[in-house]
Amino acid sequence: MIYNKITEQVLAAIKAIVGDDWVITAQPELEKYSHDETEDLHFYPEVVVKPCTAAQVSSLMKLCNENLIPVTPRGAGTGLSGGALPVMGGLVMAMERFNKVLQIDELNLQATVEPGVITEEFMNQVAEKGLLYPIDPASKGSCFIGGNVSHGSGGPRVVKYGTIREYILNLEVVLPSGEIIWTGANTLKYASGYNLTQLMIGSEGTLGIITKIVVKLIPRPTIDALMLASFTTNEAACAAVSAIFRAGIIPSALEFMERRGVEWVKENDGIAFDLKDGIGAFLLIEVDGTNQDVIFADCEKINHVLEEFDCKEVLFADTSAQKEELWRLRRTMAVSVKSNSVYKEEDTVVPRASLPELIKGIKQTGGKYGFESVCYGHAGDGNLHVNIIKGQMSDDDWNDKLKDGIREIFELTVSLGGTLSGEHGIGLVQKGFMAIKYNETHFALWRGIKQVFDKNGILNPGKIF
Amino acid sequence: MIYNKITEQVLAAIKAIVGDDWVITAQPELEKYSHDETEDLHFYPEVVVKPCTAAQVSSLMKLCNENLIPVTPRGAGTGLSGGALPVMGGLVMAMERFNKVLQIDELNLQATVEPGVITEEFMNQVAEKGLLYPIDPASKGSCFIGGNVSHGSGGPRVVKYGTIREYILNLEVVLPSGEIIWTGANTLKYASGYNLTQLMIGSEGTLGIITKIVVKLIPRPTIDALMLASFTTNEAACAAVSAIFRAGIIPSALEFMERRGVEWVKENDGIAFDLKDGIGAFLLIEVDGTNQDVIFADCEKINHVLEEFDCKEVLFADTSAQKEELWRLRRTMAVSVKSNSVYKEEDTVVPRASLPELIKGIKQTGGKYGFESVCYGHAGDGNLHVNIIKGQMSDDDWNDKLKDGIREIFELTVSLGGTLSGEHGIGLVQKGFMAIKYNETHFALWRGIKQVFDKNGILNPGKIF
Repeated sequence: MIYNKITEQVLAAIKAIVGDDWVITAQPELEKYSHDETEDLHFYPEVVVKPCTAAQVSSLMKLCNENLIPVTPRGAGTGLSGGALPVMGGLVMAMERFNKVLQIDELNLQATVEPGVITEEFMNQVAEKGLLYPIDPASKGSCFIGGNVSHGSGGPRVVKYGTIREYILNLEVVLPSGEIIWTGANTLKYASGYNLTQLMIGSEGTLGIITKIVVKLIPRPTIDALMLASFTTNEAACAAVSAIFRAGIIPSALEFMERRGVEWVKENDGIAFDLKDGIGAFLLIEVDGTNQDVIFADCEKINHVLEEFDCKEVLFADTSAQKEELWRLRRTMAVSVKSNSVYKEEDTVVPRASLPELIKGIKQTGGKYGFESVCYGHAGDGNLHVNIIKGQMSDDDWNDKLKDGIREIFELTVSLGGTLSGEHGIGLVQKGFMAIKYNETHFALWRGIKQVFDKNGILNPGKIF
Repeated sequence: MIYNKITEQVLAAIKAIVGDDWVITAQPELEKYSHDETEDLHFYPEVVVKPCTAAQVSSLMKLCNENLIPVTPRGAGTGLSGGALPVMGGLVMAMERFNKVLQIDELNLQATVEPGVITEEFMNQVAEKGLLYPIDPASKGSCFIGGNVSHGSGGPRVVKYGTIREYILNLEVVLPSGEIIWTGANTLKYASGYNLTQLMIGSEGTLGIITKIVVKLIPRPTIDALMLASFTTNEAACAAVSAIFRAGIIPSALEFMERRGVEWVKENDGIAFDLKDGIGAFLLIEVDGTNQDVIFADCEKINHVLEEFDCKEVLFADTSAQKEELWRLRRTMAVSVKSNSVYKEEDTVVPRASLPELIKGIKQTGGKYGFESVCYGHAGDGNLHVNIIKGQMSDDDWNDKLKDGIREIFELTVSLGGTLSGEHGIGLVQKGFMAIKYNETHFALWRGIKQVFDKNGILNPGKIF
């Protein structure tokens, strides 16, 4: 695909659409839009544009489509796979002005929001009405809900409440042609033709630009309990995970954390936490509901299960401050790891009973290729984030040899029935590994679908495949 | 699209693939495959073939693709939108020999099944292991799980447990080209390229033929309570629905039944049920869980809500026999209506708070066009099955004038934020109404996707759009 540069004439047309104030071309201001949270990658766009209506997005898309200018949609820039990086230059469509919760429909337990709403702000607004939107990635305080939809984002509560796919009912989307459609209906069930809503979810901004989102809400659980279980080894902690479900419990969160991650959070975040010798890994387990007796019984059952898996200690959070502190331990881990070293994050996911084998294999691969890794993640979903630390590795090894190590980790993941990403998406950085799991038939179908939506290939080029 | 007839040569090739015993060409035996449960429609295929491996399906697809022979996949033939009708003749691919539960993986709470497994048999097998697969359409005793996936089927428990989209993790699919792929991974989360699993769900056998299904299972609730609430009017019953959720309850079923439907079940099925004068409609409400106190508290809360909506009586099922009898009332309603009259069934779905307006509009339209209707369905999901009764209507009115009435019902449905089908699919009989909700842009995207999977258009032609 050959793209054009943005000419003075096109730039003038862009300014006419959104107004001069919402167009950035100066290099220092472009910097913020040249990266997301993926490694230390930088790609500069030619221009950043901040529309605020679907009509403006439509006009911009038509203009770029006619002039073969690449368009990269961008949410909050918290992505971990490079999905928002404008690798071909061109225009970055920054969605930050789409920041309104348009409606919270308490009768239908639905909401209509714009894609640039910060996930946590939306969660708080619905919580005030006694409702729950349970899709809360670790970055919930800064990420946008539009980015969550585009990446199929998850977070700790998917394990009980289901994936984002269950909560996104309908989308207003601007296609590369500039046409504006609603993908489906504002209904809890849908069996009316190929499901375009589901196709958009996780398509990483390559098929269309989301301008409105209709979300399903549910009644909010009123109480919860949180416990932290300590194990001597990673494998022991991971082995306990599937047994908890087998005991008939669906926790509202079941998170795994490796000791090294906790150490770094302590150092970086100053969290007061008594990290005992001989402890190698933790499970952070939450149950929620509406009845104290049930919560208590669930905790007891979990405790019994943990005993069978050589759990050394179970710490119950008694106060909401303690709960917050334990959650902070988990939620800030990514940031702490990042601030300690150059790193690469892989988002492996396997059937949950295969977690012990996965983490064992990751460490073996690390030994073979000479890298340290810090693992944590949504163990209840079989979703393990693998943070590979540069540490003392030479730049050559980091940039070249490491690829083979990552490949081995993904080969293991796939051999266990898993895939390359559970919730971060493929974006730029995992693209090269897709052939480990998918064959030419998959690629041909994906390319074909892309072509149907975006015949000139202008939308977020260079991503996924 | 111009298709070819099946020649002697092609027939010989078909027989060579599956063996003579699994090929039907004699007219009397073809009759069973000429219809499903949709109205009184009949379309005869030229041949019915019963493969039992993906390799056989692949060989058949290649043969038909090369010879431009239409292929209509068929499950149990319980569909209500004509999806399994071979409207262009050709070959019916009957999946009844794909009838094995291949694995129930108790460690991962997953199962791998063939598409021709009867839904209820699968549910019973996992129930024996203390597990739940909650997608149980009214036809669960005879329908196939493969048909459920193809149509995005639902049933009463979607309201609590989520749609079939949340339970189908991975599919083995034979494409029209004969290529065999797995659409995704055996994982609870998936963010690895366009989601082909989700695209297959609800595609009504037009994109590929499903040969294996990986299913998510959950721990089974141990107790439940069932109540039947009586109201004087349809609108009163429907108005109570959204209030139940607003009170913080998510019932495991919330079904609406119109009086006329209950009358017909009584007549047809001989169910002993005291149908009191002045009662116009019912809600069948189930709550489930693991704790008797919680169930009891939920029932009390629901009772309070019902009182606010002019509920005349609440009947609690005390024994499992009583529960079964109440469920039979609901589950056999479709069959009872069918045995009483020629009818057409529409599968409207709206945001649940719009149900009162929907049912009022349906009755007004009935008055205007002179038809009686019997409504029932999954009110908790806003999903109302509208059975239009031929009764004394002339054949001319039934075949022609009625279309305008149905159109009005769908126009109302769409104006309320809803769509044409929540769980039955579009198939043949709703196809003509799709333009009420969808525009040329939607159709172009759908046709484009179809073309990517099936460039010769041989797979289930004449359906959806």
